[in-house]
Amino acid sequence: MIQDPRKLEEVRARVNSQPFTTLLGAEVIAVGEGSCELKVPTRDDLKQQHGFLHGGVVSYAADNALTIAAALAMDAPVVTSEMKINYLRPAIGDYIVAKAQCLHTGKTQAVSRCDVFVVSAEGEKLCAVAQGTIAKLARPSSDR
Amino acid sequence: MIQDPRKLEEVRARVNSQPFTTLLGAEVIAVGEGSCELKVPTRDDLKQQHGFLHGGVVSYAADNALTIAAALAMDAPVVTSEMKINYLRPAIGDYIVAKAQCLHTGKTQAVSRCDVFVVSAEGEKLCAVAQGTIAKLARPSSDR
Amino acid sequence: MIQDPRKLEEVRARVNSQPFTTLLGAEVIAVGEGSCELKVPTRDDLKQQHGFLHGGVVSYAADNALTIAAALAMDAPVVTSEMKINYLRPAIGDYIVAKAQCLHTGKTQAVSRCDVFVVSAEGEKLCAVAQGTIAKLARPSSDR
Amino acid sequence: MIQDPRKLEEVRARVNSQPFTTLLGAEVIAVGEGSCELKVPTRDDLKQQHGFLHGGVVSYAADNALTIAAALAMDAPVVTSEMKINYLRPAIGDYIVAKAQCLHTGKTQAVSRCDVFVVSAEGEKLCAVAQGTIAKLARPSSDR
Repeated sequence: MIQDPRKLEEVRARVNSQPFTTLLGAEVIAVGEGSCELKVPTRDDLKQQHGFLHGGVVSYAADNALTIAAALAMDAPVVTSEMKINYLRPAIGDYIVAKAQCLHTGKTQAVSRCDVFVVSAEGEKLCAVAQGTIAKLARPSSDR
Repeated sequence: MIQDPRKLEEVRARVNSQPFTTLLGAEVIAVGEGSCELKVPTRDDLKQQHGFLHGGVVSYAADNALTIAAALAMDAPVVTSEMKINYLRPAIGDYIVAKAQCLHTGKTQAVSRCDVFVVSAEGEKLCAVAQGTIAKLARPSSDR
Repeated sequence: MIQDPRKLEEVRARVNSQPFTTLLGAEVIAVGEGSCELKVPTRDDLKQQHGFLHGGVVSYAADNALTIAAALAMDAPVVTSEMKINYLRPAIGDYIVAKAQCLHTGKTQAVSRCDVFVVSAEGEKLCAVAQGTIAKLARPSSDR
Repeated sequence: MIQDPRKLEEVRARVNSQPFTTLLGAEVIAVGEGSCELKVPTRDDLKQQHGFLHGGVVSYAADNALTIAAALAMDAPVVTSEMKINYLRPAIGDYIVAKAQCLHTGKTQAVSRCDVFVVSAEGEKLCAVAQGTIAKLARPSSDR
């Protein structure tokens, strides 16, 4: 992943302007040409009743990473059109990282994929995989 | 939707034991035979940067409602296997309600659908539709 | 479903101009405002090795019905962007009918849902459910 | 991809016992540990009205390849539970190849991904991407 510190700061600033992202403590940790890595801590208040990170948090991470990757690939404000996620194993660890890559861009939309890993002292394990469509916004707004 | 107050309380208690559900302020407002309605407020801290409810919150609501509907239909502890969601319009209003219905149950899994509505003084508008697979847990655990 | 014989003939003619549709022996049997029913026989050459209709045929039916429903709702040439299908039970019977309904139309795309039923002397049974996005074509072409 | 000629022949024989696969002229061209490549010609009778391969054929290829990859990874008879496909560009070329990889296997199911390429004298282009869940069959039957 090509790291451009200025681009990373720009993306972080935009994503951090989402109150929900702030609530979850999520942060963009890397960006590249049509790619993005988003980290979310496995805080207790983000879990379900059995002590795993809630699926909704994993899904949030995948959705946001997919969309940021597409925004970078299209260099335009975007919005998520649709997403599909498969949960592979419970997210038990210190944090998750959603790694997304834009696969294709068209005139009005892009398609991205995302692997979500749960990270602990034992290393990282794939815990969910996602795929989605991201639409370019007509007006100069910004990504969701 | 058949309302069984005792069943509703039982489901609410189980869902409220999810810290993430408490963080979002979500609550189950109705349950039936393989069906469920989950309400989430459009609080400011659940929004993205343009003032709409964050897609991750809409997705959380759909995911949880799909899964609760399947748990009710199978009368068993379950976990979400996978989900697909299409976002139809920005969720701008007072709250959203995710209305899920289990469509089919098998020995090890079920399939549910969900309509997510955004509700305001103007009435309710469909803002997202989802479909997913929910797996029965082998051990006596509980739903995500 | 509002039946307009002239509209039905127009849609049938367009769909029948697809060689693959002809190969499968599929036919549109009803159309309405943003809705469509497509029938496919359970011919032996459309089966997999265990005597059930091949999943690829069920998926074809869902995909085509979703797309035709959206074309009718948007009154424009379209192309399928993406689709998700859950197979619920083996398609064993005389024929299948894919019943699709467009749920939402935007400026550039629409979202439809589809229920696929397998029909036999015993009646009809839900055998698959699908959901997808259909894009409006910029140029005066036609639906896939 | 590790090529085991005996394994390849075994898989080809099983897949060729599907009448629908024979009708489409599809063939497995490579198999590995939880991976598979399936080729389908762009024959005229597999096209839609604009001369592109019908989406239903692309979807069939992805579905079958996903499922074969999972059957190889789990070494068991399987059936497709669900699948999601994004169409990226029209399939115009000599043939398509669906390349699938199983990402995760559990006790009762597996998750695979698939890239579908369209191949012509100009090389190969990604034309669709898919992701799906494949269930292990309880009884000694075989994959769809």
